[in-house]
Amino acid sequence: MVITRRISIQTKGHSELIDITQGVAQEVSGSGLSDGTVTIFISGSTAAVSTIEYEPGLLNDFQDMWDRLVPLNITYQHDRAWGDGNGYSHVRASLLGPSITIPFTNGRMTLGRWQQIVVVDFDNRPRLREIVLQVVGQ
Amino acid sequence: MVITRRISIQTKGHSELIDITQGVAQEVSGSGLSDGTVTIFISGSTAAVSTIEYEPGLLNDFQDMWDRLVPLNITYQHDRAWGDGNGYSHVRASLLGPSITIPFTNGRMTLGRWQQIVVVDFDNRPRLREIVLQVVGQ
Amino acid sequence: MVITRRISIQTKGHSELIDITQGVAQEVSGSGLSDGTVTIFISGSTAAVSTIEYEPGLLNDFQDMWDRLVPLNITYQHDRAWGDGNGYSHVRASLLGPSITIPFTNGRMTLGRWQQIVVVDFDNRPRLREIVLQVVGQ
Repeated sequence: MVITRRISIQTKGHSELIDITQGVAQEVSGSGLSDGTVTIFISGSTAAVSTIEYEPGLLNDFQDMWDRLVPLNITYQHDRAWGDGNGYSHVRASLLGPSITIPFTNGRMTLGRWQQIVVVDFDNRPRLREIVLQVVGQ
Repeated sequence: MVITRRISIQTKGHSELIDITQGVAQEVSGSGLSDGTVTIFISGSTAAVSTIEYEPGLLNDFQDMWDRLVPLNITYQHDRAWGDGNGYSHVRASLLGPSITIPFTNGRMTLGRWQQIVVVDFDNRPRLREIVLQVVGQ
Repeated sequence: MVITRRISIQTKGHSELIDITQGVAQEVSGSGLSDGTVTIFISGSTAAVSTIEYEPGLLNDFQDMWDRLVPLNITYQHDRAWGDGNGYSHVRASLLGPSITIPFTNGRMTLGRWQQIVVVDFDNRPRLREIVLQVVGQ
């Protein structure tokens, strides 16, 4: 069986991390399915999905990594052509990736104790984001 | 139900990005399934899969990122042992990853408007690549 | 049908790569399913999953990349708050990602010839790790 759910979140952009673990857990549990996978997919090309231990220190450390690897203060061809100023946002999102897939058993995801699901909004402005949850199971 | 499809593409290598969105969309639509997931998987250790807004500026920006993070002009142990000169290709592919999974509903993938599916061929020569599409749904 | 399997491995940490291809192949084959996907998911926030050509040179090259991109000798807020000294481990794991999904047909994964499935344990000490394999298929 396949059950589709959507989560909408308002973000601040600027590589903010949003913890969506609770929302996903509720949809998995509410699906009535016992065992399967939930695919978490972000529609859009300037945001991405991963897992992290969601505590303030690490949120800073994760940001610092992006500022080192895909900095804001270099030239992006995308910005020269489109003027959005968010070339770095696209590059970061493509590197991190738009989807993860998490198993669940007995209606519960197999996450580690300190492992939260996060959406990272790399865009350079607030956005209303829609995350698609595709629950596949029995 | 599970339906397997394959897409073959001729690449130029050298971190070229190939937009396979249309091909994947056709296979999903043609599967006759309404709702499910399509897993896009690249067989091989010097190519990877992601999504990006497929426009010339960003294709350059994405390349520039790889040249900063996993440059060509440093020493790779793989090259000293095997002489292929594509150590950087392997490292890039492992970082980006071999698979993404995209939900579909009513026969259509839930991609954003400016979000294309790309294969990135990091190898240092042209390759004939086979991408596996595993469509799981109902 | 959904079949859950688990693989336990003892790791050394320090970004060690462990080849789990054989174990996954056995579970896929032993599931009795012919066609589907296997999702490989690591429970925990300091390890990740990918594929690589598993040969000694590349294992070094992959390590070198991490030492360049997410070095040990810079300040992490996580370490200042928690004193674990593994802030870099968390950041690396979040970038690489906790899951990959691999198609299989006729009971065999569609891996390339030189493409192995690896768990990367980024933690700064040995760990007993549990990898969840969710096999979905028919």
